[in-house]
Amino acid sequence: MTDLERLLAIEDIKALKAQYFRGVDTKDAVALRAVFADGAETDFRSESPTGDPAFHQHDPDAFVRNTLYMLEGTATVHAGFMPEIEFLSDTEALARWPMNDRIWVEDTSLGRLPFITLTGWGCYHDRYVRGPAGWRIVSTRLQRTRLIVG
Amino acid sequence: MTDLERLLAIEDIKALKAQYFRGVDTKDAVALRAVFADGAETDFRSESPTGDPAFHQHDPDAFVRNTLYMLEGTATVHAGFMPEIEFLSDTEALARWPMNDRIWVEDTSLGRLPFITLTGWGCYHDRYVRGPAGWRIVSTRLQRTRLIVG
Amino acid sequence: MTDLERLLAIEDIKALKAQYFRGVDTKDAVALRAVFADGAETDFRSESPTGDPAFHQHDPDAFVRNTLYMLEGTATVHAGFMPEIEFLSDTEALARWPMNDRIWVEDTSLGRLPFITLTGWGCYHDRYVRGPAGWRIVSTRLQRTRLIVG
Repeated sequence: MTDLERLLAIEDIKALKAQYFRGVDTKDAVALRAVFADGAETDFRSESPTGDPAFHQHDPDAFVRNTLYMLEGTATVHAGFMPEIEFLSDTEALARWPMNDRIWVEDTSLGRLPFITLTGWGCYHDRYVRGPAGWRIVSTRLQRTRLIVG
Repeated sequence: MTDLERLLAIEDIKALKAQYFRGVDTKDAVALRAVFADGAETDFRSESPTGDPAFHQHDPDAFVRNTLYMLEGTATVHAGFMPEIEFLSDTEALARWPMNDRIWVEDTSLGRLPFITLTGWGCYHDRYVRGPAGWRIVSTRLQRTRLIVG
Repeated sequence: MTDLERLLAIEDIKALKAQYFRGVDTKDAVALRAVFADGAETDFRSESPTGDPAFHQHDPDAFVRNTLYMLEGTATVHAGFMPEIEFLSDTEALARWPMNDRIWVEDTSLGRLPFITLTGWGCYHDRYVRGPAGWRIVSTRLQRTRLIVG
């Protein structure tokens, strides 16, 4: 991997993660699904003290469907801060990505979330692989620093 | 546009947007004006439910003047998160730029803003063009996700 | 410095600053110390109205020790936004780095901080130098926009 190839890969991965955040916040299932490789691991056990298996899957179609179902009737902001990206090879990278999220339940009649507002901080631990169509997330795990619900 | 030229353009556009935020937050009219091309469109209609025409102009001199007038006596923080930048040609790019802003009115005697504190989230939709002096904003529109005033 | 070298330097400096934030927030003394050159200046006088000399030093070992001592028993989030980086030469750069920090005192029995929660905004003014081991911070100063303690 040349220096230029590494910089291009970093930029691609940053744009991919930005698309992930946009996909969640605009509730765009196609944009959100497209950032994941088939079979990608989504580990959000930090969000579920009761160990609901939906929070840890290897099924990005189900992840997208569940996530957008839970977020129906909400306004959300997911913000990524400054990542640290490390390349394991020309086609594999790890990233630590600090984040902040806000959720406002606007339609409380749906009753899908156990809060009205959420403010959270944490760090994504991601693995990316480059395939024929470019870089994709093959594994993402959210570690929480703090979660304030109201 | 080579890969290297594209990376340089991305970095230039990120630095330009950072200068925009600094210009607003340090109330630096020269730095703020310099990020816009002449005649640039500034569409902040999301900020004005009453449709005040000052919130949608093609006059960056007036935009800078009005903005800094309104923000006199305030402390502000405008933060940009992770953009998605798309090139239409070697000299034209679009960007989606998630943001958060905070305003604290410190001198309430001026009475220029209808709140004491503001916390907002949204997304800039920008168009950039590269001219002889480098990349400039030719159009910016702020779409709001959430606005909390107190 | 070629264009490519400049882009690589920018990426290195961004990763270094991300490591600084991680070092503070994960209380990792080794990671935190490694971002500083020996003798680096750490100017946090904005944090100390009483002029405590520990807030302005040229001793990164002491800075790391003091910082992690003060933050024992807390959860923290330090987030960097979009920097402006300017090169003075091939081996020296300045950066303005807007930031937000949150501190939650979880173990109040230690009594090391005069608050339970802190929410702050500001801008780092940093100087970086490239030595044999890569870019390092040789000087950092935090300027505050706003500080809210509870």
